[in-house]
Amino acid sequence: MRNPLSDRILEIQPSGIRKFFDIVSEMPDAISLGVGEPDFDTPWHIREEAIYSLEKGITSYTSNAGLMELRSEIAKYTKRHLGLTYHPKDEVIVTVGGSEAIDIALRAMLNPGDEVLMPEPCYVSYLPCIKLANGVPVSIQLKEEHEFRLQKEQLLEAITDKTKILILSYPNNPTGAIMTKEDLEDIAKVVVEKDLFVISDEIYAALTYGREHTSIASLPGMKERTIIINGFSKAYAMTGWRLGYALGPKIIIEQMTKIHQFCIMAAPTTSQYAAVTALKNGDRDVEEMRKSYNERRNYLMAAMRRMKLQCFEPYGAFYIFPCIKEFGMTSEEFATKLLEKEKVAVVPGSAFGECGEGFIRISYAYSIDELKEALSRVERFIEKLRA
Amino acid sequence: MRNPLSDRILEIQPSGIRKFFDIVSEMPDAISLGVGEPDFDTPWHIREEAIYSLEKGITSYTSNAGLMELRSEIAKYTKRHLGLTYHPKDEVIVTVGGSEAIDIALRAMLNPGDEVLMPEPCYVSYLPCIKLANGVPVSIQLKEEHEFRLQKEQLLEAITDKTKILILSYPNNPTGAIMTKEDLEDIAKVVVEKDLFVISDEIYAALTYGREHTSIASLPGMKERTIIINGFSKAYAMTGWRLGYALGPKIIIEQMTKIHQFCIMAAPTTSQYAAVTALKNGDRDVEEMRKSYNERRNYLMAAMRRMKLQCFEPYGAFYIFPCIKEFGMTSEEFATKLLEKEKVAVVPGSAFGECGEGFIRISYAYSIDELKEALSRVERFIEKLRA
Repeated sequence: MRNPLSDRILEIQPSGIRKFFDIVSEMPDAISLGVGEPDFDTPWHIREEAIYSLEKGITSYTSNAGLMELRSEIAKYTKRHLGLTYHPKDEVIVTVGGSEAIDIALRAMLNPGDEVLMPEPCYVSYLPCIKLANGVPVSIQLKEEHEFRLQKEQLLEAITDKTKILILSYPNNPTGAIMTKEDLEDIAKVVVEKDLFVISDEIYAALTYGREHTSIASLPGMKERTIIINGFSKAYAMTGWRLGYALGPKIIIEQMTKIHQFCIMAAPTTSQYAAVTALKNGDRDVEEMRKSYNERRNYLMAAMRRMKLQCFEPYGAFYIFPCIKEFGMTSEEFATKLLEKEKVAVVPGSAFGECGEGFIRISYAYSIDELKEALSRVERFIEKLRA
Repeated sequence: MRNPLSDRILEIQPSGIRKFFDIVSEMPDAISLGVGEPDFDTPWHIREEAIYSLEKGITSYTSNAGLMELRSEIAKYTKRHLGLTYHPKDEVIVTVGGSEAIDIALRAMLNPGDEVLMPEPCYVSYLPCIKLANGVPVSIQLKEEHEFRLQKEQLLEAITDKTKILILSYPNNPTGAIMTKEDLEDIAKVVVEKDLFVISDEIYAALTYGREHTSIASLPGMKERTIIINGFSKAYAMTGWRLGYALGPKIIIEQMTKIHQFCIMAAPTTSQYAAVTALKNGDRDVEEMRKSYNERRNYLMAAMRRMKLQCFEPYGAFYIFPCIKEFGMTSEEFATKLLEKEKVAVVPGSAFGECGEGFIRISYAYSIDELKEALSRVERFIEKLRA
């Protein structure tokens, strides 16, 4: 029998995060600081709305692009938070999480050989999604000395005449980095001048601490060049609901909707009803969770200082990204030993790109008690390494 | 600003069904016999299980391939109905409806230029999904005289040295056709001999009337060459839950899971809990709905005979596919006039491929009362045409 598989799919490596957590799942007494998922349940009033819609028997397809009421609420939310106007009818599409939105944006926009700039460290899906959409991923190696913000010079250096798209992802997973309005202005100028498009993954936009989130789409000349990706998973603790959205120029959203219609059909109905309530009445929930994340962030940063573990202060998402280069081992070795010796799971930075080497990702989507226990184990671990 | 879109996406036409229903949605007093979706709400005990899981706060991601309990129940169901053994761990993946399963199967298997045989009339997503996965769709024009079953001769004629996959879809949308075990044996021999693979879309498998459903995967030499697509939408009236699955050889399911992990992450959690209950306790619901569909099918076939509208008897899904060639107009003209004059919406057969021209698709996922009213309008319409 011949090989059933495509050549390309065999080139794509499974996620480094996943490989690591397959090991963790076999260790019942391990503490994981690894998962990129809120530890909160979805707020009750949001679940209640879903329950109500199920009781009423609302179980059929919505329109392909999503419930019009939900698209309207998304547009209002975006106006409120970013000051940008998107038309619910043809500039908003509801997707199966931010993941699908990224995938169909790339599929709608890329011709074979088009280059996509991907500042790393970054979320593990970008590279495979670019390859699957016939694009060529081009890595930009971000640096800790710049607090993992994309620099204008790095961007200019990476652009060729094949470059079509830049994927921006701030607040960032895995580093927790954000980019300010001023930072983004530098980037936007280059994007406009070089006639590029931006896929701006803003899934953590609601989770910044003491800093305002700015979308690059709000800068001059950028709205018509930007697809904003957002969703409910992180801000509203709604990961399992699989609900995200994309906002962008009609000409692109229309084509994304075509792919979505054929390859997915529509996002889950119950989740869409819940999401309407999340947007209408969920501001306070987001605020409370953000407060809680910020306490944990402060706790972790204090622990880093106490341990003298080098770590730039991250102002977004729910990750810190400390440097472990002083121990003279790879981040995978560090993470593996930490798991073996102290049963604490963190993610090796190298899972997020080459320049993540020498760092580990610690998620603070865990209770202070869990963090305390885990951090005391980490402390013991590095004290032994240093001794 | 340059063109943001890929060349390929612009070549793909939006669904013909959709175009038609955009018109229907503006006509409040129209009766639609067009939608491919059960008119039943999801059975209460299934919704209740979803509600219970939400009350318990189960709102986070499941594993990428789906809840292990659900995969086990899917394997048991498949054993019970098809006599085939699939391992829940690595031969089953839970997807966002059958739609996603088809998309990722094609993405996992096709190299650029590989040909995919697509017997038409067929579901509108196959062609765009093949193109989006870099494949070349090759249509096989099925004939009413064969009751729209694929003939061995037609298959042999369509095979070239670039052919890799055959998409089989029985019970069929839009024709309602089924293929018997004997019919499939002819096809399976060719598939094995020519070293092809089959994507067997069996989403309507639970809805056959007086005939047993056979999966081509159960024939000699076929299990290792077949990806079975199935799901909860049609059998359990669970369209809005967006839940389907694929079964197949480990080597293929593994790669589909990789794509799913990066591009979708996981199917919706609440839907997965509901689906466990559907498989455990839903047999009677399926049986009741099937009985009801069969009554409607019998009612429609009697009406066709009374009107002397040529229509082969379909034994599966919930569609009939009458021939309207006698009226000397295209199926789109016929459907448009029927909507204008009598406000009844049906789908032009041409939406499902060239050889659907001269036919219309009537769905019987509607109550007998609605069918009665609609059919009396259709009768008036064709009497006037004939006069």
